[in-house]
Amino acid sequence: FALGTPEIERFPFDVWTRLLARAWRRPSVDLWRSDGPAGHRPLRVAIADYLRAARAVDCTSDQIIVTSGAQQSISLAVNALLDPAEKVWIENPGYTGLQGPLIAAGQVPVPVPVDDQGLSLNEGLRRAPDARMAIVTPSHHYPLGTVMSLSRRLALLDWAKDSKAWLLEDDYDSEYRYSGRPLSAMQGLDRSARVIYIGSFSKVLFPALRMGYLVAPADLAEKMIRIRATMDEHPSTTAQPALAAFFAEGHFAAHIRRMRRLYAARQACLLAAAREHLNGLCQVAPDEAGLHLVAWLTDSCLARMDDQAAARRAAGAGIVAPALSRFYLEPPVKQALLLGYAGVPEEIIPSAVRRLAQCLTA
Amino acid sequence: FALGTPEIERFPFDVWTRLLARAWRRPSVDLWRSDGPAGHRPLRVAIADYLRAARAVDCTSDQIIVTSGAQQSISLAVNALLDPAEKVWIENPGYTGLQGPLIAAGQVPVPVPVDDQGLSLNEGLRRAPDARMAIVTPSHHYPLGTVMSLSRRLALLDWAKDSKAWLLEDDYDSEYRYSGRPLSAMQGLDRSARVIYIGSFSKVLFPALRMGYLVAPADLAEKMIRIRATMDEHPSTTAQPALAAFFAEGHFAAHIRRMRRLYAARQACLLAAAREHLNGLCQVAPDEAGLHLVAWLTDSCLARMDDQAAARRAAGAGIVAPALSRFYLEPPVKQALLLGYAGVPEEIIPSAVRRLAQCLTA
Repeated sequence: FALGTPEIERFPFDVWTRLLARAWRRPSVDLWRSDGPAGHRPLRVAIADYLRAARAVDCTSDQIIVTSGAQQSISLAVNALLDPAEKVWIENPGYTGLQGPLIAAGQVPVPVPVDDQGLSLNEGLRRAPDARMAIVTPSHHYPLGTVMSLSRRLALLDWAKDSKAWLLEDDYDSEYRYSGRPLSAMQGLDRSARVIYIGSFSKVLFPALRMGYLVAPADLAEKMIRIRATMDEHPSTTAQPALAAFFAEGHFAAHIRRMRRLYAARQACLLAAAREHLNGLCQVAPDEAGLHLVAWLTDSCLARMDDQAAARRAAGAGIVAPALSRFYLEPPVKQALLLGYAGVPEEIIPSAVRRLAQCLTA
Repeated sequence: FALGTPEIERFPFDVWTRLLARAWRRPSVDLWRSDGPAGHRPLRVAIADYLRAARAVDCTSDQIIVTSGAQQSISLAVNALLDPAEKVWIENPGYTGLQGPLIAAGQVPVPVPVDDQGLSLNEGLRRAPDARMAIVTPSHHYPLGTVMSLSRRLALLDWAKDSKAWLLEDDYDSEYRYSGRPLSAMQGLDRSARVIYIGSFSKVLFPALRMGYLVAPADLAEKMIRIRATMDEHPSTTAQPALAAFFAEGHFAAHIRRMRRLYAARQACLLAAAREHLNGLCQVAPDEAGLHLVAWLTDSCLARMDDQAAARRAAGAGIVAPALSRFYLEPPVKQALLLGYAGVPEEIIPSAVRRLAQCLTA
C-alpha cells in the first residue's frame, strides 16, 4: 500500500511511445536547441487550457513554467519571492520532503497544525506572525485528505494580501476525485496575485517522468522565468512535445477518466476488506479523492503498539503501510496507517488486508 | 558564428528515435518508477566506461551522477562541498554563466586571471588565499582555447591537497580534438580525491537534451547522491535509456568521429577565409580543439572600434560574432571576436567572413 504509486500497468505506453517517436523523428529547431526557460510553448498552452477548464485556475500560457517537479517548483518560488532567512508556514502533518529544500534555500520552515478546515491561520499567526509564505495542499491535504474549507481559503488569501505574503498552492491529487463537486483551486479565488499554483505529472502519468509546472502570478511570470534560467537554463525538451500531444489529442483526459474508475473501485474494495478484517483494529473512512486512505488505529490496538511499530510489523509481513506519525514535524502526533490503494490490484487487496490484520492482532 | 551550437542536421535523430521508442514501448519498472537519484544504472555504466577509455578518468559507475547539465552539476558540487560564503576561484575570462549559480548558492566567486598555462595559481593565492574551490576548464579554456599545462595541473592539485580545497574540472569540449594528443583529464592525475569532474552532452548530442554528469570522488559519492535527491529527487528517465543504448551500441563514438571530421573541415575553411578576407583586421590562429576560433582584432582595427562595437556591427549585418571582452569579469580585458564554426556549413563560411570583413573596415 505504498503512497503516491499510480497503476502503471494501465498507462498507455504504446500511445506515449508513438508521440515521443513522432516528435523526435524530424525535430523542429525549438526542440533540439531550446524552447526557452519556461518550457515548450505547445505544452505550456496545453497545461493552461487544462488548468482553466478543470481547476478554474486563472492563467494564460505565459504564466506556465515547466519544471522537473514539485521540488524544483518550490525552490523556484522560494528563490524568486523570498529573501534569505524568511519564515515559511508548512502544514503539520505534511509532506516531509519540504523541509530539506526550504532549509537548503536558506529559509526557516515553521510547522503549523492542520485542523478540520485545513492549515490553522490562528496557529500560524501565533507561531510566526512575520511569515512571508505558506505552503498548503487545499484540494486534498497530504496525508490526511482534509479539504480546506472555503472560509479558510478566503482567510488565508486575506492574510496574504494584507501582509504581502505568498501562498504556494500545491494542488496535490486534484485529478482524482470520485464523488461530490471539487472546490476549484484557491488560485482562481485570488484577486491580489499572491498565489503560486504548482502541480505535477508524477501521479497522473508516471513518477520517473519528473515533470511538473508552476503557475506564476501574471506580473511576476517574466521575473520567475529569468530566475528559472539561472537554476538550470531550461527543462529538457525530450518528453515535452509528447506530453503536449498527449493533452491535445485527448489522451490525458481519457487516461484520467479510466484511472478514476479504476481507483474508485480499488478504494471500495479496500473499504470492504477493512470492514471485514480490520474491525476493532482500525477505523477506515471513505475519501472522496486521492490515492490512499487513512486507517486510524483504535485504542485497543494502540494499547499493544504505536503506528510505527505497526508499520514495522506490516513491513515484516511484506506489506507497505506507512505510519502517519512520521508525517508530523513535532508533537502531538496522531497515529494511523496510510493505505495507498492506487497501485494495488483488486484481487490482492483482501488478502493483503487480512495479513495486515494479523500483524495488528498478534 | 554562434558559440556552443553543434551541427544538428547531422545528428542521427532516426537512430535516437528508434532507441527512445524501444525503451518506452514496454518500460521496465526502474524506468517508470525511478532508477535512483544518481540516474539510470546502464547510463551510469556507459558514461564511466567512456570516461575511463577516452579521458583517463579514474572512476566506477558508482561515482557517476546524471544531472540536468553543467549548471546543476556545479550547484550540486557547491551544495555538497562548501559551507556558505566560501570563496571560489573562477577563470577570468571565463564562462559568465558561472557567477549566478555561485551567488545564488551563497558563495563568493573570485575572478582569477588566466595566463598561457591556465588559471594563475599565484594570482589566486594573492586574491583569495582562503578559497575552498577552483572551477577550471583545463582541456580547452573557455573561451580562449588554452590547454592547461601539466605543471599547472600538478600545482593546482598540490594546492587542493594541501589546503583541503576542491577542483571542479569542467571538461568542456574535450570530445572535439583535431590533432595532437590530448592531455588526459586532471581527475586522472589526482591522488587525493579532490577533483570533481563534470561533463555535458549539450554539444555532442543536442543542447535541448539538458543532460550532463558529475564524477564524484569515490568517498563522497554517496553523500553527493543524497544531496542530489534533495535538489530534485532524480533525473527524468525519459532520455536516459536511449542515451545508454546510444553509447552501448557505438552510436556515440561514431557520431563524434563523424562530427570531428566535419568540424575539422569547417575550421580549415574558416581559417582559409580569414586569411583571404580578414588580413590586417584580425589575427586568427588554428586551434587543435573546440568548436570556435579566436579572432584577435589588430591595432589598426582597434583604432576604429572595440570588440563590442565590432560585434554590434556584425550583428547589424546578420552575423553573430561574440566579443571576447564580454567574457571578462574585470579589467584589463583583451579584445577579439569569437567565431563558432561548428554549426556553420562550409558553403556559407567564405561569404560570411567577407561580410564580417566589411563590418570591420567600414
